[in-house]
Amino acid sequence: MSSKRLIYLPLGGAGEIGMNAYVYGYGEPDKERFILVDLGVTFPDMDGTPGVDLILPDMTWLKERADRLDAIFVTHAHEDHVGAVAMCYEALGAPVYARAFTANIARRKMEEYGHPEDAVRTASAWPEQVQAGPFSVGFLPMSHSIPESGALVIDSPAGRVIHTGDFKLDQTPIVGEPFDPELWAEVSAGGVKAMICDSTNVFSPMPGRSEATVGPEIEKLVSQASGMVVATTFASNVARVKTLAEAGERAGRSIVLLGRAMRRMVEAAIETGVLTDFPKVVSTDAAKDIPRENLMLLVTGSQGERRAASAQLARGKYQGLEVKEGDLFLFSSKTIPGNERGVIRIINAFSEKGVDVVDDSSGLYHVSGHANRPDLERLHAIVKPQMLIPMHGEHRHLREHAKLAEAAGLQSALVVNGMMMDLTGNEPRVAEYIETGRTYLDGAVQIGALDGVVRDRIRMALNGHVIVTLILDDEDELLGDPWCEIMGLPETGRSRAALVEVLEEDLSQFLNRANRKTLRDDAAIEEALRRIVRKTAQDEIGKKPEVTVVVSRLS
Amino acid sequence: MSSKRLIYLPLGGAGEIGMNAYVYGYGEPDKERFILVDLGVTFPDMDGTPGVDLILPDMTWLKERADRLDAIFVTHAHEDHVGAVAMCYEALGAPVYARAFTANIARRKMEEYGHPEDAVRTASAWPEQVQAGPFSVGFLPMSHSIPESGALVIDSPAGRVIHTGDFKLDQTPIVGEPFDPELWAEVSAGGVKAMICDSTNVFSPMPGRSEATVGPEIEKLVSQASGMVVATTFASNVARVKTLAEAGERAGRSIVLLGRAMRRMVEAAIETGVLTDFPKVVSTDAAKDIPRENLMLLVTGSQGERRAASAQLARGKYQGLEVKEGDLFLFSSKTIPGNERGVIRIINAFSEKGVDVVDDSSGLYHVSGHANRPDLERLHAIVKPQMLIPMHGEHRHLREHAKLAEAAGLQSALVVNGMMMDLTGNEPRVAEYIETGRTYLDGAVQIGALDGVVRDRIRMALNGHVIVTLILDDEDELLGDPWCEIMGLPETGRSRAALVEVLEEDLSQFLNRANRKTLRDDAAIEEALRRIVRKTAQDEIGKKPEVTVVVSRLS
Repeated sequence: MSSKRLIYLPLGGAGEIGMNAYVYGYGEPDKERFILVDLGVTFPDMDGTPGVDLILPDMTWLKERADRLDAIFVTHAHEDHVGAVAMCYEALGAPVYARAFTANIARRKMEEYGHPEDAVRTASAWPEQVQAGPFSVGFLPMSHSIPESGALVIDSPAGRVIHTGDFKLDQTPIVGEPFDPELWAEVSAGGVKAMICDSTNVFSPMPGRSEATVGPEIEKLVSQASGMVVATTFASNVARVKTLAEAGERAGRSIVLLGRAMRRMVEAAIETGVLTDFPKVVSTDAAKDIPRENLMLLVTGSQGERRAASAQLARGKYQGLEVKEGDLFLFSSKTIPGNERGVIRIINAFSEKGVDVVDDSSGLYHVSGHANRPDLERLHAIVKPQMLIPMHGEHRHLREHAKLAEAAGLQSALVVNGMMMDLTGNEPRVAEYIETGRTYLDGAVQIGALDGVVRDRIRMALNGHVIVTLILDDEDELLGDPWCEIMGLPETGRSRAALVEVLEEDLSQFLNRANRKTLRDDAAIEEALRRIVRKTAQDEIGKKPEVTVVVSRLS
Repeated sequence: MSSKRLIYLPLGGAGEIGMNAYVYGYGEPDKERFILVDLGVTFPDMDGTPGVDLILPDMTWLKERADRLDAIFVTHAHEDHVGAVAMCYEALGAPVYARAFTANIARRKMEEYGHPEDAVRTASAWPEQVQAGPFSVGFLPMSHSIPESGALVIDSPAGRVIHTGDFKLDQTPIVGEPFDPELWAEVSAGGVKAMICDSTNVFSPMPGRSEATVGPEIEKLVSQASGMVVATTFASNVARVKTLAEAGERAGRSIVLLGRAMRRMVEAAIETGVLTDFPKVVSTDAAKDIPRENLMLLVTGSQGERRAASAQLARGKYQGLEVKEGDLFLFSSKTIPGNERGVIRIINAFSEKGVDVVDDSSGLYHVSGHANRPDLERLHAIVKPQMLIPMHGEHRHLREHAKLAEAAGLQSALVVNGMMMDLTGNEPRVAEYIETGRTYLDGAVQIGALDGVVRDRIRMALNGHVIVTLILDDEDELLGDPWCEIMGLPETGRSRAALVEVLEEDLSQFLNRANRKTLRDDAAIEEALRRIVRKTAQDEIGKKPEVTVVVSRLS
């Protein structure tokens, strides 16, 4: 019996929605050859990651084994699957494979980082396969809310694994290949050892609706509008962008694309041939000469992002264009949990301008890109894998999906980031627990989530910051008085005196009484002054601030 | 013709959901006598108000005219209506009127601030009225998600105004008085000049459901549960707490109340007689001896608040009680927009413990406390006011509600905070625009929203903080080198050297070349050093931090 094993190890995406990164390996323990599926980012927020630009999975484990990594496969071009490819390219040093549209987007990212163009290789659809070490990997067409999303058929000496990527079962997807149940049945006919399966919508009880169902509703809405129409959706949802543009065109409107991502995605889709017959687009300059009732703007910013076109239009002008009373703004999108405040801010800003806002609450103008519960059951039944491992979901999604699979008689396991699973035998088995985590892209620097940098920012935001400076001479005598500066704190407290003066007074009293031994010891001074500042501030303003003490010694 | 006028002036709550505060006045211009309806708070968040404890309306305008304020009326005991009463009591100096349950809650707040017990006066329900200057004010019973919510009938020489407070049309509310359409018709029969009306649910298209509809569903769920059941709802929703407790009791479970607010609300409701026949409650100590399948915990924290009982149970133990695999956690509540992240965090934490979480997505276990669109239309039709002024809503709600009223042939106006409306004539007319805003309770101090304190906190959170100290002698010569400390910034950047060393080097270079004139001028030094730090940091780490420069001069 072979001692070689087939392993599955999520480094991101299992226990969260975002920053997907899944390792597969085959070989003798600790000598496996690896492939990586997806390498995405997730987005920061003010609550937990203020000031951070992007969050990526901590790839330390794989970087330390980069010599055993044969290839990276990217299932589709959403940021949570492709967003970290360029940032990690040098450290991983493996070729990246993707289908044409995804490869186009990935190459643009590589370019920004100065990586060679051939870092990304374009793969064809199934039945072609890419050889990568012990694996043969094929891109099996699947529908999603972006063109050319592909499941991966991963063949290894231990059997066939299907990694679904993100998907929905859409047989009329407007753009890109439809879900083809016969093809999936055929691929699965010889037996599938494991299906690693998207879990995002496991709590949605009704079958998912096709992208084709929103077109007629959007057309009705646009045809009845009397002013300018502005619509937003994810730029990468090229099918939706096309549907919106066609609805505008049929209503006799000229189409304007606003926002860098919107233009870039349409461009990439046309370049790679996945998008054809897109209505004619006019420039923002040309739009200024067109009556507003003949205009339809397709804009970025469906999640309320502050710098996107929708937010800028809500605040004022964007590239010379402006909304007015009587215009219509359509969110052809769902608000991702956590983004509600930003979206509501925009809706109210439009309301103040007299713009009618139509959102997703009716369910008419948006459909999800993920398989709902009955769709998952349907795919389970078509593929009939020996094991069904839920991925891409928070813990609650993975747990529910595993229950669903078990109820259908499939072997399942709740696998979260860092659990290395041995899939070789008849059931999934935990082989090892790997340290995983998050890395922050912060300006130009990558920092660890646990480095304390962001923790300090959060503390300053919650508690304010007091800076104490004092000068000692070469005999450890205080020169002058200690000096306080405050940042993010009220200027006066209970005593109605300036907070800095009250602090300085208490610090002076302490220092004047302090003995030589304390004054000789920077750490002792800092500790004592920090404690005094926190106590006095608590008395004065009811808060304990962060404190930085700078001791200068003249010699 | 009288030169006296009837005015309506929202200082909070019109243009937002939260911190309600509405002024009514009658008299000659600038000599009106006032009453204030509600005085609530709203809650801070990390995005816009880090470190802040509570947000209240800026009451400066009314405080400056406190001698003309005859009374404060509180419609009900939700924090966004009663939360700021004690904080503003001294500055406003007017008696507070409320019905028994609301008064009980308000008095507890007054006590915390050391105000006299008679600061709050208990009012009876309509037809009794309180005289307050030129106004007679009666509490007209209305249903809502808290006991004894009251609309106010405000009679003035210029006519009758109805201020609805928050409400729903519930004829079987479980606790508290049902909505009585005949009473409302009778009160309105003589003509109502204006109705100032809750707008929260104007976008909900279906008629609201009664509180009585959730009982049977909750009972079914609880009776089928095999482990411990934990349920959360707003503690102030005494009817729901009773429904939950009764479902537990019928299923043979002992009831435990967890969380200060939960116990306080039930206590207040029993004390004031609005809650009767509440199932027997056992202590947490007694609960430890009861098998978990015979326990039902009612806990605070339906919005994912970090310190509430639900979050503590999700993390570990709360007062010795602990959830286990197979237990059931029920959110009998809706997640308020903006709180999604906290609620999802708890759900996933329970999922990790193997607890099944049931949330509001089915619509079975929660009903809203606000009137939906058809309910608003129904009340408009019963009261038939001359003017319908939407209140308690974001701009989008107020705008939609005004449209709804106009479609029914009522005069309406979109009135936001700071718009003083003259209601004396046949239509609402803007009399004046008043400066309004927000005040933050920050620790023990009230600070203005525009004071810059919170802005500095946000900047430190986004950009980090660099502190530069340098010492000059009495001839403006640099003593030693400048010294940098960083907080919330990565320790190394592009050059792989310590960030503080790179900064110190650039600062030293500048200072060594600086002329005497610059070195004599603190402001010039600070400005120059700040610019250098920001530029060097941008080069090194891709961020421009906040900078504090401390110049010490020895003399």
